[in-house]
Amino acid sequence: MRYEELTIEGRNAVLEAFRAGKTIDRLFVLDGCQDGPVRSIVREAKKGNTIVSFVPKERLDQMSETKKHQGVIAFAAAYEYAQVEDILSAAKEKGEPPFIFLLDGIEDPHNLGAIIRTANQAGAHGIIIPKRRAAGLTATAAKTSAGAINYTPVAKVTNLVQTMEELKQEGLWFVCADMGGELMYRQNLTGAIGLVIGSEGEGVSRLVKEKCDFITKIPMFGQIDSLNASVAAGILAYEIVRQRRFAK
Amino acid sequence: MRYEELTIEGRNAVLEAFRAGKTIDRLFVLDGCQDGPVRSIVREAKKGNTIVSFVPKERLDQMSETKKHQGVIAFAAAYEYAQVEDILSAAKEKGEPPFIFLLDGIEDPHNLGAIIRTANQAGAHGIIIPKRRAAGLTATAAKTSAGAINYTPVAKVTNLVQTMEELKQEGLWFVCADMGGELMYRQNLTGAIGLVIGSEGEGVSRLVKEKCDFITKIPMFGQIDSLNASVAAGILAYEIVRQRRFAK
Repeated sequence: MRYEELTIEGRNAVLEAFRAGKTIDRLFVLDGCQDGPVRSIVREAKKGNTIVSFVPKERLDQMSETKKHQGVIAFAAAYEYAQVEDILSAAKEKGEPPFIFLLDGIEDPHNLGAIIRTANQAGAHGIIIPKRRAAGLTATAAKTSAGAINYTPVAKVTNLVQTMEELKQEGLWFVCADMGGELMYRQNLTGAIGLVIGSEGEGVSRLVKEKCDFITKIPMFGQIDSLNASVAAGILAYEIVRQRRFAK
Repeated sequence: MRYEELTIEGRNAVLEAFRAGKTIDRLFVLDGCQDGPVRSIVREAKKGNTIVSFVPKERLDQMSETKKHQGVIAFAAAYEYAQVEDILSAAKEKGEPPFIFLLDGIEDPHNLGAIIRTANQAGAHGIIIPKRRAAGLTATAAKTSAGAINYTPVAKVTNLVQTMEELKQEGLWFVCADMGGELMYRQNLTGAIGLVIGSEGEGVSRLVKEKCDFITKIPMFGQIDSLNASVAAGILAYEIVRQRRFAK
Protein backbone atom coordinates (compact mmCIF):
# COMPACT_ATOMS: atom_id res chain seq x y z
CA MET A 1 0.00 0.00 0.00
CA ARG A 2 1.20 3.52 -0.67
CA TYR A 3 -0.18 6.57 1.06
CA GLU A 4 1.07 9.61 -0.72
CA GLU A 5 1.15 13.17 0.44
CA LEU A 6 -2.31 14.64 0.60
CA THR A 7 -1.68 18.36 0.91
CA ILE A 8 0.47 20.41 -1.43
CA GLU A 9 1.19 23.97 -0.34
CA GLY A 10 2.92 26.99 -1.85
CA ARG A 11 2.93 28.37 -5.36
CA ASN A 12 5.83 26.43 -6.87
CA ALA A 13 4.83 23.11 -5.35
CA VAL A 14 1.24 23.41 -6.51
CA LEU A 15 2.17 24.54 -10.03
CA GLU A 16 4.69 21.70 -10.28
CA ALA A 17 2.06 19.18 -9.20
CA PHE A 18 -0.30 20.32 -11.94
CA ARG A 19 2.41 20.33 -14.58
CA ALA A 20 3.56 16.85 -13.55
CA GLY A 21 0.04 15.64 -14.31
CA LYS A 22 -0.82 14.80 -10.72
CA THR A 23 -4.53 14.38 -9.99
CA ILE A 24 -5.56 17.34 -7.84
CA ASP A 25 -8.95 16.87 -6.22
CA ARG A 26 -9.38 20.41 -4.95
CA LEU A 27 -7.56 23.70 -5.06
CA PHE A 28 -7.96 26.43 -2.47
CA VAL A 29 -6.86 29.94 -3.41
CA LEU A 30 -6.71 33.09 -1.30
CA ASP A 31 -9.75 35.19 -2.14
CA GLY A 32 -8.84 38.26 -4.19
CA CYS A 33 -5.38 37.01 -5.05
CA GLN A 34 -4.87 37.79 -8.74
CA ASP A 35 -1.13 37.94 -9.43
CA GLY A 36 0.66 36.11 -12.23
CA PRO A 37 1.69 32.87 -10.50
CA VAL A 38 -1.74 32.40 -8.90
CA ARG A 39 -3.46 33.03 -12.24
CA SER A 40 -1.24 30.35 -13.84
CA ILE A 41 -2.19 27.89 -11.14
CA VAL A 42 -5.91 28.58 -11.54
CA ARG A 43 -5.56 28.17 -15.31
CA GLU A 44 -3.87 24.77 -14.87
CA ALA A 45 -6.60 23.78 -12.42
CA LYS A 46 -9.32 24.60 -14.90
CA LYS A 47 -7.55 22.66 -17.64
CA GLY A 48 -7.61 19.59 -15.40
CA ASN A 49 -11.19 20.14 -14.25
CA THR A 50 -10.04 20.58 -10.67
CA ILE A 51 -12.58 22.27 -8.42
CA VAL A 52 -11.28 25.68 -7.33
CA SER A 53 -12.48 27.44 -4.18
CA PHE A 54 -11.60 31.02 -3.28
CA VAL A 55 -11.42 31.30 0.49
CA PRO A 56 -10.39 33.85 3.14
CA LYS A 57 -6.93 33.80 4.67
CA GLU A 58 -8.14 32.33 7.98
CA ARG A 59 -9.47 29.25 6.21
CA LEU A 60 -6.16 28.69 4.40
CA ASP A 61 -4.18 29.18 7.60
CA GLN A 62 -6.35 26.60 9.28
CA MET A 63 -5.88 24.04 6.52
CA SER A 64 -2.16 24.67 6.21
CA GLU A 65 0.24 22.12 7.62
CA THR A 66 3.43 24.01 6.78
CA LYS A 67 2.03 27.46 7.57
CA LYS A 68 3.74 28.60 4.35
CA HIS A 69 0.92 28.22 1.85
CA GLN A 70 1.52 31.51 -0.05
CA GLY A 71 -2.18 31.69 -0.83
CA VAL A 72 -2.58 28.26 -2.47
CA ILE A 73 -3.26 24.82 -1.09
CA ALA A 74 -3.99 21.81 -3.28
CA PHE A 75 -5.35 18.45 -2.21
CA ALA A 76 -3.97 15.69 -4.33
CA ALA A 77 -5.58 12.32 -4.78
CA ALA A 78 -3.56 9.81 -2.77
CA TYR A 79 -4.40 7.24 -5.44
CA GLU A 80 -4.94 7.39 -9.15
CA TYR A 81 -8.47 7.19 -10.50
CA ALA A 82 -9.55 4.61 -13.02
CA GLN A 83 -11.81 5.13 -16.03
CA VAL A 84 -15.36 3.80 -16.23
CA GLU A 85 -14.19 1.62 -19.13
CA ASP A 86 -11.62 -0.05 -16.83
CA ILE A 87 -14.46 -1.14 -14.57
CA LEU A 88 -16.46 -2.60 -17.44
CA SER A 89 -13.35 -4.39 -18.71
CA ALA A 90 -12.76 -5.92 -15.28
CA ALA A 91 -16.24 -7.43 -15.36
CA LYS A 92 -15.74 -8.68 -18.90
CA GLU A 93 -12.41 -10.30 -18.05
CA LYS A 94 -14.05 -12.23 -15.23
CA GLY A 95 -16.94 -13.20 -17.47
CA GLU A 96 -19.41 -11.69 -15.02
CA PRO A 97 -22.28 -9.23 -15.52
CA PRO A 98 -21.04 -5.83 -14.27
CA PHE A 99 -21.68 -5.01 -10.61
CA ILE A 100 -20.80 -1.36 -9.96
CA PHE A 101 -21.28 0.95 -6.99
CA LEU A 102 -22.27 4.56 -7.71
CA LEU A 103 -21.82 6.92 -4.79
CA ASP A 104 -24.08 9.95 -5.07
CA GLY A 105 -22.24 12.41 -2.87
CA ILE A 106 -20.54 10.43 -0.08
CA GLU A 107 -18.58 13.20 1.66
CA ASP A 108 -16.98 11.35 4.56
CA PRO A 109 -13.68 9.74 3.47
CA HIS A 110 -14.13 7.06 6.18
CA ASN A 111 -17.42 6.05 4.58
CA LEU A 112 -15.80 6.10 1.13
CA GLY A 113 -12.97 3.86 2.37
CA ALA A 114 -15.35 1.41 4.07
CA ILE A 115 -17.45 1.23 0.90
CA ILE A 116 -14.39 0.51 -1.28
CA ARG A 117 -13.55 -2.29 1.16
CA THR A 118 -17.09 -3.67 0.95
CA ALA A 119 -17.16 -3.41 -2.84
CA ASN A 120 -13.94 -5.41 -3.02
CA GLN A 121 -15.25 -8.16 -0.73
CA ALA A 122 -18.65 -8.33 -2.40
CA GLY A 123 -16.95 -8.94 -5.73
CA ALA A 124 -18.04 -5.66 -7.30
CA HIS A 125 -16.01 -4.56 -10.32
CA GLY A 126 -15.59 -0.93 -9.37
CA ILE A 127 -16.93 2.29 -7.92
CA ILE A 128 -17.98 5.52 -9.60
CA ILE A 129 -17.96 8.80 -7.72
CA PRO A 130 -18.87 12.31 -8.86
CA LYS A 131 -16.35 15.12 -9.03
CA ARG A 132 -18.34 17.56 -6.91
CA ARG A 133 -19.53 17.33 -3.32
CA ALA A 134 -17.86 14.01 -2.72
CA ALA A 135 -14.87 12.62 -0.87
CA GLY A 136 -12.01 11.67 -3.18
CA LEU A 137 -9.26 9.08 -2.87
CA THR A 138 -7.55 10.81 0.01
CA ALA A 139 -5.09 9.19 2.40
CA THR A 140 -7.92 8.70 4.91
CA ALA A 141 -10.12 6.93 2.38
CA ALA A 142 -7.16 4.77 1.35
CA LYS A 143 -6.39 3.82 4.94
CA THR A 144 -10.02 3.01 5.79
CA SER A 145 -10.26 0.82 2.70
CA ALA A 146 -7.74 -1.54 4.34
CA GLY A 147 -5.90 -2.02 1.08
CA ALA A 148 -8.97 -2.56 -1.11
CA ILE A 149 -8.12 0.65 -2.95
CA ASN A 150 -5.27 -1.23 -4.61
CA TYR A 151 -7.63 -3.75 -6.16
CA THR A 152 -11.00 -2.12 -6.72
CA PRO A 153 -10.96 0.62 -9.37
CA VAL A 154 -12.57 3.97 -8.52
CA ALA A 155 -13.59 6.27 -11.38
CA LYS A 156 -14.46 9.94 -10.94
CA VAL A 157 -16.97 11.45 -13.36
CA THR A 158 -18.23 14.98 -13.97
CA ASN A 159 -21.88 14.07 -14.29
CA LEU A 160 -23.25 10.99 -12.59
CA VAL A 161 -26.57 11.12 -14.47
CA GLN A 162 -24.83 11.19 -17.84
CA THR A 163 -22.59 8.28 -16.84
CA MET A 164 -25.69 6.31 -15.84
CA GLU A 165 -27.17 6.96 -19.27
CA GLU A 166 -24.00 5.71 -20.94
CA LEU A 167 -23.94 2.62 -18.75
CA LYS A 168 -27.54 1.86 -19.62
CA GLN A 169 -26.35 1.52 -23.20
CA GLU A 170 -24.01 -1.17 -21.87
CA GLY A 171 -26.97 -3.04 -20.43
CA LEU A 172 -26.78 -1.96 -16.81
CA TRP A 173 -29.81 -1.48 -14.60
CA PHE A 174 -29.72 0.90 -11.67
CA VAL A 175 -31.15 0.43 -8.22
CA CYS A 176 -31.13 2.86 -5.33
CA ALA A 177 -32.38 2.50 -1.80
CA ASP A 178 -35.20 4.65 -0.56
CA MET A 179 -38.14 4.39 1.76
CA GLY A 180 -40.77 4.17 -0.97
CA GLY A 181 -39.16 1.17 -2.65
CA GLU A 182 -39.87 -2.51 -2.89
CA LEU A 183 -38.44 -4.67 -0.10
CA MET A 184 -34.92 -5.69 -1.19
CA TYR A 185 -35.49 -9.38 -0.47
CA ARG A 186 -38.43 -9.40 -2.89
CA GLN A 187 -36.77 -7.49 -5.71
CA ASN A 188 -34.78 -9.05 -8.51
CA LEU A 189 -31.25 -7.70 -8.05
CA THR A 190 -29.43 -10.00 -10.46
CA GLY A 191 -27.86 -9.21 -13.82
CA ALA A 192 -25.75 -6.20 -14.81
CA ILE A 193 -26.41 -3.86 -11.94
CA GLY A 194 -25.43 -0.40 -10.69
CA LEU A 195 -26.04 0.05 -6.96
CA VAL A 196 -26.59 3.73 -6.15
CA ILE A 197 -25.75 4.84 -2.60
CA GLY A 198 -27.03 8.25 -1.48
CA SER A 199 -25.13 10.80 0.57
CA GLU A 200 -24.99 10.70 4.37
CA GLY A 201 -27.34 13.59 4.89
CA GLU A 202 -29.54 13.84 1.85
CA GLY A 203 -29.83 10.37 0.39
CA VAL A 204 -30.00 9.96 -3.38
CA SER A 205 -30.46 13.22 -5.28
CA ARG A 206 -33.60 13.77 -7.36
CA LEU A 207 -32.02 13.62 -10.81
CA VAL A 208 -30.06 10.48 -10.02
CA LYS A 209 -33.12 8.83 -8.49
CA GLU A 210 -35.12 9.60 -11.64
CA LYS A 211 -32.49 7.71 -13.66
CA CYS A 212 -32.77 4.65 -11.43
CA ASP A 213 -34.73 1.75 -12.89
CA PHE A 214 -36.00 0.64 -9.55
CA ILE A 215 -36.02 1.69 -5.94
CA THR A 216 -35.47 -0.83 -3.22
CA LYS A 217 -35.90 -0.70 0.53
CA ILE A 218 -33.88 -2.01 3.45
CA PRO A 219 -36.53 -2.89 6.06
CA MET A 220 -36.08 -0.78 9.20
CA PHE A 221 -37.75 -1.35 12.54
CA GLY A 222 -36.08 1.34 14.64
CA GLN A 223 -37.05 4.76 15.89
CA ILE A 224 -34.43 6.69 13.93
CA ASP A 225 -34.18 7.81 10.32
CA SER A 226 -31.64 5.75 8.52
CA LEU A 227 -28.51 3.63 8.58
CA ASN A 228 -24.91 4.75 8.26
CA ALA A 229 -24.17 5.08 4.52
CA SER A 230 -21.39 2.47 4.47
CA VAL A 231 -23.48 0.01 6.51
CA ALA A 232 -26.46 0.48 4.16
CA ALA A 233 -24.13 -0.07 1.20
CA GLY A 234 -22.88 -3.31 2.78
CA ILE A 235 -26.39 -4.63 3.46
CA LEU A 236 -27.56 -3.87 -0.10
CA ALA A 237 -24.38 -5.23 -1.68
CA TYR A 238 -24.72 -8.52 0.15
CA GLU A 239 -28.38 -8.90 -0.79
CA ILE A 240 -27.13 -8.56 -4.37
CA VAL A 241 -24.42 -11.15 -3.62
CA ARG A 242 -27.03 -13.52 -2.19
CA GLN A 243 -29.28 -13.20 -5.21
CA ARG A 244 -26.48 -13.34 -7.79
CA ARG A 245 -24.52 -16.20 -6.34
CA PHE A 246 -26.48 -18.13 -3.75
CA ALA A 247 -30.20 -17.94 -4.40
CA LYS A 248 -31.80 -21.11 -5.66
CA MET B 1 -30.62 13.81 22.16
CA ARG B 2 -28.25 14.77 24.91
CA TYR B 3 -24.47 14.66 24.53
CA GLU B 4 -22.93 15.11 27.90
CA GLU B 5 -19.41 16.10 28.77
CA LEU B 6 -16.94 13.36 27.96
CA THR B 7 -13.78 14.41 29.77
CA ILE B 8 -13.58 15.34 33.42
CA GLU B 9 -10.28 16.85 34.55
CA GLY B 10 -8.80 17.92 37.87
CA ARG B 11 -8.98 16.36 41.30
CA ASN B 12 -12.14 17.97 42.63
CA ALA B 13 -14.13 17.53 39.46
CA VAL B 14 -13.19 13.86 39.14
CA LEU B 15 -13.86 13.09 42.82
CA GLU B 16 -17.21 14.89 42.60
CA ALA B 17 -18.16 12.86 39.53
CA PHE B 18 -17.48 9.59 41.34
CA ARG B 19 -19.36 10.70 44.46
CA ALA B 20 -22.32 11.85 42.37
CA GLY B 21 -22.57 8.30 41.06
CA LYS B 22 -21.66 9.19 37.49
CA THR B 23 -20.58 6.25 35.31
CA ILE B 24 -16.87 6.70 34.66
CA ASP B 25 -15.59 4.47 31.87
CA ARG B 26 -11.89 5.05 32.41
CA LEU B 27 -9.64 6.92 34.79
CA PHE B 28 -6.13 8.08 33.91
CA VAL B 29 -3.80 8.93 36.79
CA LEU B 30 -0.30 10.39 36.71
CA ASP B 31 2.15 7.55 37.23
CA GLY B 32 3.76 7.65 40.69
CA CYS B 33 1.24 10.12 42.08
CA GLN B 34 0.30 8.87 45.55
CA ASP B 35 -0.97 11.80 47.59
CA GLY B 36 -4.21 11.83 49.58
CA PRO B 37 -6.67 13.25 47.06
CA VAL B 38 -5.39 10.98 44.28
CA ARG B 39 -5.61 7.94 46.57
CA SER B 40 -9.24 8.85 47.34
CA ILE B 41 -10.03 9.07 43.66
CA VAL B 42 -8.43 5.72 42.88
CA ARG B 43 -10.35 4.16 45.80
CA GLU B 44 -13.65 5.50 44.43
CA ALA B 45 -12.74 4.22 40.99
CA LYS B 46 -12.12 0.72 42.31
CA LYS B 47 -15.43 0.75 44.16
CA GLY B 48 -17.21 1.48 40.90
CA ASN B 49 -15.17 -1.03 38.88
CA THR B 50 -13.75 1.74 36.73
CA ILE B 51 -10.63 0.78 34.82
CA VAL B 52 -7.64 2.77 36.12
CA SER B 53 -4.52 3.41 34.04
CA PHE B 54 -1.33 4.97 35.40
CA VAL B 55 0.31 6.97 32.64
CA PRO B 56 3.22 9.40 32.18
CA LYS B 57 2.69 13.14 32.29
CA GLU B 58 3.08 13.53 28.51
CA ARG B 59 0.11 11.24 27.89
CA LEU B 60 -2.10 13.18 30.31
CA ASP B 61 -1.06 16.50 28.79
CA GLN B 62 -1.95 15.18 25.38
CA MET B 63 -5.39 13.99 26.49
CA SER B 64 -6.14 17.14 28.46
CA GLU B 65 -8.55 19.67 27.03
CA THR B 66 -8.23 22.23 29.81
CA LYS B 67 -4.46 21.74 30.34
CA LYS B 68 -5.26 21.78 34.08
CA HIS B 69 -5.68 18.08 34.78
CA GLN B 70 -3.75 18.00 38.09
CA GLY B 71 -2.74 14.42 37.40
CA VAL B 72 -6.22 12.95 36.88
CA ILE B 73 -8.47 12.68 33.84
CA ALA B 74 -11.69 10.69 33.83
CA PHE B 75 -13.78 9.69 30.85
CA ALA B 76 -17.42 9.61 31.73
CA ALA B 77 -20.02 7.65 29.85
CA ALA B 78 -22.07 10.14 27.85
CA TYR B 79 -25.06 7.85 28.33
CA GLU B 80 -26.21 5.53 31.05
CA TYR B 81 -25.80 1.79 30.62
CA ALA B 82 -28.67 -0.65 30.83
CA GLN B 83 -28.69 -4.07 32.50
CA VAL B 84 -28.79 -7.32 30.56
CA GLU B 85 -32.20 -7.97 32.14
CA ASP B 86 -33.54 -4.76 30.57
CA ILE B 87 -32.67 -6.15 27.15
CA LEU B 88 -34.44 -9.44 27.81
CA SER B 89 -37.48 -7.56 29.12
CA ALA B 90 -37.59 -5.44 25.97
CA ALA B 91 -37.82 -8.61 23.86
CA LYS B 92 -40.48 -10.07 26.14
CA GLU B 93 -42.58 -6.93 25.99
CA LYS B 94 -42.59 -7.07 22.22
CA GLY B 95 -43.40 -10.77 22.29
CA GLU B 96 -40.32 -11.53 20.17
CA PRO B 97 -37.50 -14.04 20.66
CA PRO B 98 -34.47 -12.05 21.92
CA PHE B 99 -32.10 -10.67 19.29
CA ILE B 100 -29.00 -9.28 20.98
CA PHE B 101 -25.66 -7.99 19.67
CA LEU B 102 -22.53 -8.91 21.67
CA LEU B 103 -19.47 -6.84 20.80
CA ASP B 104 -16.27 -8.66 21.63
CA GLY B 105 -13.85 -5.76 21.91
CA ILE B 106 -15.00 -3.06 19.47
CA GLU B 107 -12.55 -0.26 20.31
CA ASP B 108 -13.50 2.42 17.81
CA PRO B 109 -16.37 4.57 19.14
CA HIS B 110 -17.43 5.31 15.54
CA ASN B 111 -17.90 1.60 14.96
CA LEU B 112 -19.76 1.24 18.26
CA GLY B 113 -22.08 4.11 17.32
CA ALA B 114 -22.74 2.72 13.83
CA ILE B 115 -23.50 -0.70 15.33
CA ILE B 116 -25.97 0.78 17.85
CA ARG B 117 -27.66 2.49 14.91
CA THR B 118 -27.80 -0.78 12.96
CA ALA B 119 -29.08 -2.74 15.97
CA ASN B 120 -31.89 -0.22 16.38
CA GLN B 121 -32.91 -0.44 12.72
CA ALA B 122 -32.63 -4.21 12.55
CA GLY B 123 -35.06 -4.48 15.45
CA ALA B 124 -32.50 -5.94 17.89
CA HIS B 125 -33.41 -5.62 21.56
CA GLY B 126 -30.05 -4.47 22.84
CA ILE B 127 -26.27 -4.61 22.81
CA ILE B 128 -23.84 -6.10 25.30
CA ILE B 129 -20.27 -4.84 25.53
CA PRO B 130 -17.43 -5.88 27.82
CA LYS B 131 -15.88 -3.56 30.36
CA ARG B 132 -12.31 -3.99 29.18
CA ARG B 133 -10.68 -3.24 25.84
CA ALA B 134 -13.83 -1.77 24.37
CA ALA B 135 -15.24 1.61 23.44
CA GLY B 136 -17.90 2.82 25.87
CA LEU B 137 -20.87 5.11 25.41
CA THR B 138 -18.81 8.20 24.75
CA ALA B 139 -20.02 11.36 23.09
CA THR B 140 -18.52 10.14 19.80
CA ALA B 141 -20.36 6.83 19.97
CA ALA B 142 -23.57 8.67 20.86
CA LYS B 143 -23.19 11.06 17.94
CA THR B 144 -22.39 8.30 15.43
CA SER B 145 -25.43 6.35 16.61
CA ALA B 146 -27.60 9.15 15.16
CA GLY B 147 -29.93 9.06 18.15
CA ALA B 148 -30.29 5.27 18.33
CA ILE B 149 -28.51 5.33 21.70
CA ASN B 150 -31.71 6.81 23.16
CA TYR B 151 -33.75 3.77 22.15
CA THR B 152 -31.50 0.71 22.04
CA PRO B 153 -30.19 -0.36 25.47
CA VAL B 154 -26.47 -1.03 25.86
CA ALA B 155 -25.31 -3.15 28.81
CA LYS B 156 -21.70 -3.36 29.97
CA VAL B 157 -20.56 -6.61 31.57
CA THR B 158 -17.37 -7.68 33.32
CA ASN B 159 -17.11 -11.06 31.66
CA LEU B 160 -18.63 -11.66 28.25
CA VAL B 161 -18.22 -15.44 28.43
CA GLN B 162 -20.06 -15.65 31.74
CA THR B 163 -22.87 -13.47 30.40
CA MET B 164 -23.17 -15.80 27.41
CA GLU B 165 -23.52 -18.76 29.76
CA GLU B 166 -26.27 -16.99 31.67
CA LEU B 167 -28.08 -16.08 28.46
CA LYS B 168 -27.93 -19.68 27.29
CA GLN B 169 -30.03 -20.51 30.35
CA GLU B 170 -32.57 -18.06 28.90
CA GLY B 171 -32.66 -20.02 25.69
CA LEU B 172 -30.33 -17.92 23.54
CA TRP B 173 -28.06 -19.39 20.85
CA PHE B 174 -24.87 -17.61 19.86
CA VAL B 175 -23.45 -17.15 16.43
CA CYS B 176 -20.20 -15.45 15.44
CA ALA B 177 -18.70 -14.78 12.06
CA ASP B 178 -15.46 -16.40 11.05
CA MET B 179 -13.81 -17.77 7.96
CA GLY B 180 -14.25 -21.41 8.88
CA GLY B 181 -18.02 -21.16 9.33
CA GLU B 182 -21.06 -22.18 7.35
CA LEU B 183 -22.25 -19.72 4.71
CA MET B 184 -24.67 -17.34 6.44
CA TYR B 185 -27.37 -17.78 3.80
CA ARG B 186 -27.42 -21.53 4.45
CA GLN B 187 -27.44 -21.39 8.24
CA ASN B 188 -30.55 -21.21 10.38
CA LEU B 189 -30.33 -17.83 12.12
CA THR B 190 -33.86 -17.70 13.53
CA GLY B 191 -35.01 -17.97 17.13
CA ALA B 192 -33.50 -16.40 20.26
CA ILE B 193 -30.12 -15.30 18.98
CA GLY B 194 -26.97 -13.55 20.17
CA LEU B 195 -24.90 -12.15 17.32
CA VAL B 196 -21.23 -11.91 18.32
CA ILE B 197 -19.13 -9.29 16.51
CA GLY B 198 -15.35 -9.52 16.86
CA SER B 199 -12.96 -6.64 17.31
CA GLU B 200 -11.57 -4.61 14.42
CA GLY B 201 -8.11 -6.12 14.55
CA GLU B 202 -8.39 -9.54 16.11
CA GLY B 203 -11.88 -10.81 15.37
CA VAL B 204 -13.69 -12.90 17.98
CA SER B 205 -11.48 -13.97 20.90
CA ARG B 206 -10.85 -17.67 21.51
CA LEU B 207 -12.86 -18.08 24.72
CA VAL B 208 -15.86 -16.26 23.30
CA LYS B 209 -15.69 -18.26 20.08
CA GLU B 210 -15.65 -21.50 22.07
CA LYS B 211 -18.91 -20.43 23.70
CA CYS B 212 -20.59 -19.79 20.36
CA ASP B 213 -23.04 -22.46 19.22
CA PHE B 214 -22.24 -21.97 15.60
CA ILE B 215 -19.88 -20.08 13.35
CA THR B 216 -21.15 -18.42 10.23
CA LYS B 217 -19.40 -16.90 7.25
CA ILE B 218 -20.00 -13.81 5.17
CA PRO B 219 -18.86 -14.81 1.68
CA MET B 220 -15.95 -12.68 0.50
CA PHE B 221 -14.57 -12.48 -2.99
CA GLY B 222 -11.95 -9.77 -2.56
CA GLN B 223 -8.20 -9.66 -2.20
CA ILE B 224 -8.17 -8.23 1.32
CA ASP B 225 -8.73 -9.75 4.74
CA SER B 226 -12.02 -8.65 6.11
CA LEU B 227 -14.82 -6.13 6.24
CA ASN B 228 -15.13 -3.10 8.49
CA ALA B 229 -16.59 -4.32 11.82
CA SER B 230 -19.73 -2.18 11.65
CA VAL B 231 -20.36 -3.15 8.02
CA ALA B 232 -19.95 -6.86 8.86
CA ALA B 233 -22.36 -6.39 11.78
CA GLY B 234 -24.89 -4.81 9.44
CA ILE B 235 -24.64 -7.58 6.85
CA LEU B 236 -25.04 -10.33 9.47
CA ALA B 237 -27.86 -8.51 11.27
CA TYR B 238 -29.84 -8.15 8.07
CA GLU B 239 -29.36 -11.80 7.14
CA ILE B 240 -30.92 -12.51 10.55
CA VAL B 241 -33.71 -10.03 9.74
CA ARG B 242 -34.35 -11.74 6.41
CA GLN B 243 -34.54 -15.19 7.97
CA ARG B 244 -36.59 -14.09 10.99
CA ARG B 245 -39.10 -11.93 9.22
CA PHE B 246 -39.09 -12.44 5.48
CA ALA B 247 -38.00 -15.97 4.57
CA LYS B 248 -40.74 -18.22 3.32
